[in-house]
Amino acid sequence: MGRGMRPTVAWTEGEKGPCVQLLDQTRLPLEEVVVECYTVEELCDAIKRLVVRGAPAIGCSAALGMALAARLSTAGTGEELLEELRRARDQLAATRPTAVNLFWALERMMKRAEDVSSAPPAAITLVLIAEAQLIVADDLARCHAIGEHGAELIGERANILTHCNAGALATSGYGTALGVIRAAHSAGKQVHVWVDETRPLLQGARLTAWELMKEEIPCTVICDNAAACLMREGKVDCVVVGADRIAANGDVANKIGTYALACLCEKHGLPFYVAAPLSTVDLGIATGADIPIEERAADEVCNFSGQRTCPAGVRAYNPAFDVTPHELVSAIITEHGVIRAPYADSLQAAVARNDQNRSAIMPQRPAQGNKHE
Amino acid sequence: MGRGMRPTVAWTEGEKGPCVQLLDQTRLPLEEVVVECYTVEELCDAIKRLVVRGAPAIGCSAALGMALAARLSTAGTGEELLEELRRARDQLAATRPTAVNLFWALERMMKRAEDVSSAPPAAITLVLIAEAQLIVADDLARCHAIGEHGAELIGERANILTHCNAGALATSGYGTALGVIRAAHSAGKQVHVWVDETRPLLQGARLTAWELMKEEIPCTVICDNAAACLMREGKVDCVVVGADRIAANGDVANKIGTYALACLCEKHGLPFYVAAPLSTVDLGIATGADIPIEERAADEVCNFSGQRTCPAGVRAYNPAFDVTPHELVSAIITEHGVIRAPYADSLQAAVARNDQNRSAIMPQRPAQGNKHE
Repeated sequence: MGRGMRPTVAWTEGEKGPCVQLLDQTRLPLEEVVVECYTVEELCDAIKRLVVRGAPAIGCSAALGMALAARLSTAGTGEELLEELRRARDQLAATRPTAVNLFWALERMMKRAEDVSSAPPAAITLVLIAEAQLIVADDLARCHAIGEHGAELIGERANILTHCNAGALATSGYGTALGVIRAAHSAGKQVHVWVDETRPLLQGARLTAWELMKEEIPCTVICDNAAACLMREGKVDCVVVGADRIAANGDVANKIGTYALACLCEKHGLPFYVAAPLSTVDLGIATGADIPIEERAADEVCNFSGQRTCPAGVRAYNPAFDVTPHELVSAIITEHGVIRAPYADSLQAAVARNDQNRSAIMPQRPAQGNKHE
Repeated sequence: MGRGMRPTVAWTEGEKGPCVQLLDQTRLPLEEVVVECYTVEELCDAIKRLVVRGAPAIGCSAALGMALAARLSTAGTGEELLEELRRARDQLAATRPTAVNLFWALERMMKRAEDVSSAPPAAITLVLIAEAQLIVADDLARCHAIGEHGAELIGERANILTHCNAGALATSGYGTALGVIRAAHSAGKQVHVWVDETRPLLQGARLTAWELMKEEIPCTVICDNAAACLMREGKVDCVVVGADRIAANGDVANKIGTYALACLCEKHGLPFYVAAPLSTVDLGIATGADIPIEERAADEVCNFSGQRTCPAGVRAYNPAFDVTPHELVSAIITEHGVIRAPYADSLQAAVARNDQNRSAIMPQRPAQGNKHE
């Protein structure tokens, strides 16, 4: 989705060799530039620099990175290749700590490689390229399913506030929170989106507004500071955000500022929805207190495009994410439907259903992996 | 106060003529530049462009602007001069709508002129120059009194979060919210300040951090989005902010984002303090719903230093202030002491006490009006 939008992530076997292509999100909305990663190191650097970001998109990129590692390998045996893949996995896993989709995708790729480890390296490589592209295509299909389920929660006329970017750029396409908004808009609902600019890196102002403008979905950018007074004035009907990791009890890690919005929704009696694929759920973590929160460089707060905004020498604190406790979450919108409290039960059931019935989510129309519709 | 800090506002009779000097806050913290306003028009432009901002500082600037209008006048009679002063008042009153100190200072200057309107224009002018400098000196003294009263509310070890800039730069010196912090620090309390950067114009990151660094008061700049999670983690003991207008019932208009902080304080059981001189109280307005809220240009949200951050053509909404309802305000710290609910009674009593006993607030040491200590 996204008219005229290049894919967020894509696998290419071009003249210059196999590579992972990323739409450079650090340069949007001013420029649409594609970055080509020809090595795992280049891809790791791109993930750290947020050339690609958003939990599902990071997962897709990591899966393609594992395929790239296999494709570049000169290993003589399956076991040698698996050793190289483990090193690639460790490199990719060290890029960003919070989004669990990264680790989920890496484990799925490793497991696939292990399943076929007795095959010749060339055959394993083909399996891994296919598996990565399957993950990318599957992510797109899951976003569409999330959108359809979530759209039912949106009124016929709705002012929806969203934070950061949980759109096509945060996934392999269509988006999670923006998937819900796209689906509601496609269904003919009159939606207007309040776009939190999302400091420090302005993913809302730069990326979400860009996506919505391309779709011609009415939107208005606001400073994060304005959300509360809009709610008080009755100008917000609900908040929909994505997630970077959801603990077994339903606590949600997402972009810094999300927790404040959840508190403000509680105060103003508004629904607070989280839209995420089940790959974002980490049943291995009991509560949000155990989710590792990435702290990024102070420069992201103290500089803008290389221009200093703070006095020299000042200290800054820059946590990239916060945790919203499950009791503030009205519902979690997944590809298997809308999940409500008690989350400890409902999340576990949804994950089990998903594990049993994975193929049900595959695209209805033949999708070319990383092509946006 | 503020070691080595130039005055926020000052009256000068220099070689180039009488003028109102303003420390250019649009260029801080990168450069310390003084802007000289030789006409009321130049001063109005400076106020609109936020060369000077902060409710008490706007009031001081407007008072000096009235003195400037008188000083530049060639009126032959007191009545002619008063006509010119009324035009100057109207020009200055049209600069910014929310901070009531502007209107308070203009009315005080007009009233003073009317009181002596039978005198020759030159004499009226001298009275007005003296009155304006008295307002500036008085503002500084009131900030010190606010600081002393407020410091008693601060614990021996305290993490204080503040929003925007209610410091020396927002007043004739010392500050209101930062006056409380300065006084607590001077009293030997171990204070650390979380400085909300305060989008869109970053008055926290640019101005508050600059003042605190000059004072060597420990501080850390954060994105406004991070305040909620710091509260949840127990890293904030209280919030202290300034005010642009306080209605008779205690509702407080202040920089956009203040209301969110008040909600978050309620959620986390933290005190939310407003520090302001009684000139900020508008007993003529019953509730916050009647306070005019300035909407500023979308460009403040969509651009940074002339560089576009949003996609072309996107709509943005940029209210400069919000209203915090009185029930979320733990106390209002004034120059006449700490005022608590019910505010309808306590504010009226404080204003009456202030009107009866104005001289009590004058500086204990002879202050030179706009000199910072």
